[in-house]
Amino acid sequence: MSSRPPVCLVIGAGAGIGGTVGRRFAAEGYHAVLCRRSDQQGLDALVAEIQAEGGLASGFLLNAVEPDTIENLVTSTESTIGPIDVVVFNLGAQIGDRALLETSYKSFEMCWRLATFGLFRAATAACPIMAERGKGSFLVTSSTAAVRGNAGQHAHAAAMGGRRMLCQSLNAEFGPKGIHIAHILIDGAVDAPDTLGKMLGPDMFQALRETRGMEHDGLMLPDKIADTYWHLAQQHRSTWTHEMDLRSFTDRPWWNH
Amino acid sequence: MSSRPPVCLVIGAGAGIGGTVGRRFAAEGYHAVLCRRSDQQGLDALVAEIQAEGGLASGFLLNAVEPDTIENLVTSTESTIGPIDVVVFNLGAQIGDRALLETSYKSFEMCWRLATFGLFRAATAACPIMAERGKGSFLVTSSTAAVRGNAGQHAHAAAMGGRRMLCQSLNAEFGPKGIHIAHILIDGAVDAPDTLGKMLGPDMFQALRETRGMEHDGLMLPDKIADTYWHLAQQHRSTWTHEMDLRSFTDRPWWNH
Amino acid sequence: MSSRPPVCLVIGAGAGIGGTVGRRFAAEGYHAVLCRRSDQQGLDALVAEIQAEGGLASGFLLNAVEPDTIENLVTSTESTIGPIDVVVFNLGAQIGDRALLETSYKSFEMCWRLATFGLFRAATAACPIMAERGKGSFLVTSSTAAVRGNAGQHAHAAAMGGRRMLCQSLNAEFGPKGIHIAHILIDGAVDAPDTLGKMLGPDMFQALRETRGMEHDGLMLPDKIADTYWHLAQQHRSTWTHEMDLRSFTDRPWWNH
Amino acid sequence: MSSRPPVCLVIGAGAGIGGTVGRRFAAEGYHAVLCRRSDQQGLDALVAEIQAEGGLASGFLLNAVEPDTIENLVTSTESTIGPIDVVVFNLGAQIGDRALLETSYKSFEMCWRLATFGLFRAATAACPIMAERGKGSFLVTSSTAAVRGNAGQHAHAAAMGGRRMLCQSLNAEFGPKGIHIAHILIDGAVDAPDTLGKMLGPDMFQALRETRGMEHDGLMLPDKIADTYWHLAQQHRSTWTHEMDLRSFTDRPWWNH
Repeated sequence: MSSRPPVCLVIGAGAGIGGTVGRRFAAEGYHAVLCRRSDQQGLDALVAEIQAEGGLASGFLLNAVEPDTIENLVTSTESTIGPIDVVVFNLGAQIGDRALLETSYKSFEMCWRLATFGLFRAATAACPIMAERGKGSFLVTSSTAAVRGNAGQHAHAAAMGGRRMLCQSLNAEFGPKGIHIAHILIDGAVDAPDTLGKMLGPDMFQALRETRGMEHDGLMLPDKIADTYWHLAQQHRSTWTHEMDLRSFTDRPWWNH
Repeated sequence: MSSRPPVCLVIGAGAGIGGTVGRRFAAEGYHAVLCRRSDQQGLDALVAEIQAEGGLASGFLLNAVEPDTIENLVTSTESTIGPIDVVVFNLGAQIGDRALLETSYKSFEMCWRLATFGLFRAATAACPIMAERGKGSFLVTSSTAAVRGNAGQHAHAAAMGGRRMLCQSLNAEFGPKGIHIAHILIDGAVDAPDTLGKMLGPDMFQALRETRGMEHDGLMLPDKIADTYWHLAQQHRSTWTHEMDLRSFTDRPWWNH
Repeated sequence: MSSRPPVCLVIGAGAGIGGTVGRRFAAEGYHAVLCRRSDQQGLDALVAEIQAEGGLASGFLLNAVEPDTIENLVTSTESTIGPIDVVVFNLGAQIGDRALLETSYKSFEMCWRLATFGLFRAATAACPIMAERGKGSFLVTSSTAAVRGNAGQHAHAAAMGGRRMLCQSLNAEFGPKGIHIAHILIDGAVDAPDTLGKMLGPDMFQALRETRGMEHDGLMLPDKIADTYWHLAQQHRSTWTHEMDLRSFTDRPWWNH
Repeated sequence: MSSRPPVCLVIGAGAGIGGTVGRRFAAEGYHAVLCRRSDQQGLDALVAEIQAEGGLASGFLLNAVEPDTIENLVTSTESTIGPIDVVVFNLGAQIGDRALLETSYKSFEMCWRLATFGLFRAATAACPIMAERGKGSFLVTSSTAAVRGNAGQHAHAAAMGGRRMLCQSLNAEFGPKGIHIAHILIDGAVDAPDTLGKMLGPDMFQALRETRGMEHDGLMLPDKIADTYWHLAQQHRSTWTHEMDLRSFTDRPWWNH
């Protein structure tokens, strides 16, 4: 592993959970390899910000539904940047609520390609490498839709439900090989400009922040989520968490609404 | 709906759950429309058997991963056979236990195409038609892998986990429109020559039947499973079951092993 | 077992699920032994009604929190009426929503005594007898509170959560001995004068029936619930259900609200 | 609240999770109030150890099934030691596997009194006080038996299932008031001399440590568990975990065995 710092590879690194978790790991001495589908400018800004804080970071645009993209990313990261010690799989598949007839085959498949098959590909590429080293963490961001379907969630829930069962299968195979697979249930709204912000538009997002976020702490803060991702990666292998939920104190859990 | 008898459309009608459920519905006055991927001879025999018992049955070979096959089946059934009152979605995706690196992208995708996307297509084709009539049942055979991943189950569990969440989403949209969506967890070995029998080979299957099945009742009998499918389709709409498990009395439930 | 008809012992037999299930089993040839805490008149009327339909029934007032009551009932039923083939455990513990400080120690304990400890006592008394005969059904009515706690449900949810885990433990021990343990999740309002009716009062109950029940089928009909209890008791031992949910087609499942 | 340091009140503070968590909070500036049923000597040693490390600690023998004990402990702690900021509820109810007929009424009730009713009493005493201050953590150690019953687990599973549903109910009421309720699923063997050690006896416990614990990391280390309890208490209220599991990397999760 020579002297290259360990890599935290973030697949899905926008200005919410993904980017913030990457920045946190960089602050702890990791080389953050940040991948996202678009917005080169935002990506560059994030990398620059980390570097300005004295951290190591690289950024790549990555289309996770294209063949070989995730696989090549893992290979090239290992060969040119450093050993992947942590994968943060953070690709979402939220397309908003859509009735069945408004859910196209294409979007149903796209959700699966991103949220389920993308994870399978990333695990296939990275887990064996980590298993050879006998250690590593594979932290998977997940959502309420992984544990319960709901009206309009046909595509999203099918993709996330598959993701959760895949995480359990990966854990059964790779846990005993020293790879910590964690399925993290984000069960609430995140204060994330790149996802929630874009979905709502700037005005509504700002209004939501004022009424529910900010001093109300009713929106999950990416910085605080990153604390928990960091904790998971630090858990001793005698004491691992496979699944946990996260939500604001003002949010009712999914089983209560 | 004129005088045509209601149709029970079975997608995945081998000599196990699917075919037996179809035969049961035919015995109760339904026209059983039986679809399976291959084995024209077996299909013809099943149709003939039902007709010999005085029932109505039609059989079709159907490749559920090909575009338009499921959709055309629904359309043509409605126009030429009768109104679809019950759909039995019985396509499996069990490919046996395979370690991650032995699970090809192709097989991972194939499981999803059959078990998750196939259900989505069938629901998209049939649910709106049934919803217009304000009634119908959509009975989905499922498996242990829908509720827990396990070693070697990467592809199967991801597909079935997606199936379960999709069933809950369909239920949220179509339950109130009078469509009874049921997710039936088959949590044990079925005495099914076409699936378990082919997986084990004739000798081992016969041996299993002798040691565990037959008078031991340790293999689930398709006839008895069909009783429960029939019961589900008969439940009054004030009293519907969305999810239930089924296993032999000698089998430990999935949460105990 | 001589020529005495098999007994269906209903613990908690009011004019809702319990009494109706008992009547159904009586109609199928069972001797219904109906127990409830109070209302001798209502109990007598139920017994008379069953007998008028040509069925066998006996009624007993039973205080399930008193020592030895359940135990003696099982013993005396076996010796004087007939072999207990089916137990329907139908004691509820719904005390309405109460904040923590409004939930007295006494009511918290009472819920447990009825819903959890009562089941334990009934199982201790009846399961070994049934196991000796190698057959029997133990059908446990349960509720949403068994799978998720909620505001004001401290006592109820603690009692029902215990009940569910106890059912799984009973199943693990007695399933292989031929006793069918079923945990039936009643996830909606039942059209039951003795429970919902008394909680709401006659006027509100009638209003609810008119707006949501009756032709709307938005209240679960005890007769229809009894169909499913009967089906469960009839399931072949190769194909048993341990857990299922029941709700009206218009009700959202617990995981969606 | 003056200048008194915040209290971490540990109910069930043996030489395993409870005592170690208490020591950890003391190291972070809390006054650890440690309660256990017996072993004054062990308790004194733990208190002395914390004090030798420069921490604040007090120890009390407490019989949690006696009336008023928990209640008085909360009251006296608040008045004489400091404001309770964290409660660690760590009473277990594991009595080993026992068949139904070997599970006495007394032991069934005892499990409930410790694991379920004890939690209810502690919450009734402490939650309103913490809610008035608008903050606090209530960390509940739980076990596999809270999510699935099993053979011989009648008493234990009933008690822990009740505990889990009670935690969800407490969370629904007190989460929005700033009290962080966490249900921590200990799904594996803990390297704890006072519980596992006593159950196995010194020789077997040492043997287990050598074959499975120590450098194998197959037994959960209380120190490492304490890291996670500490993390939970530190989570920002915008980002709380209600439920998480913990097990060694070599242990199969409960859903896989």
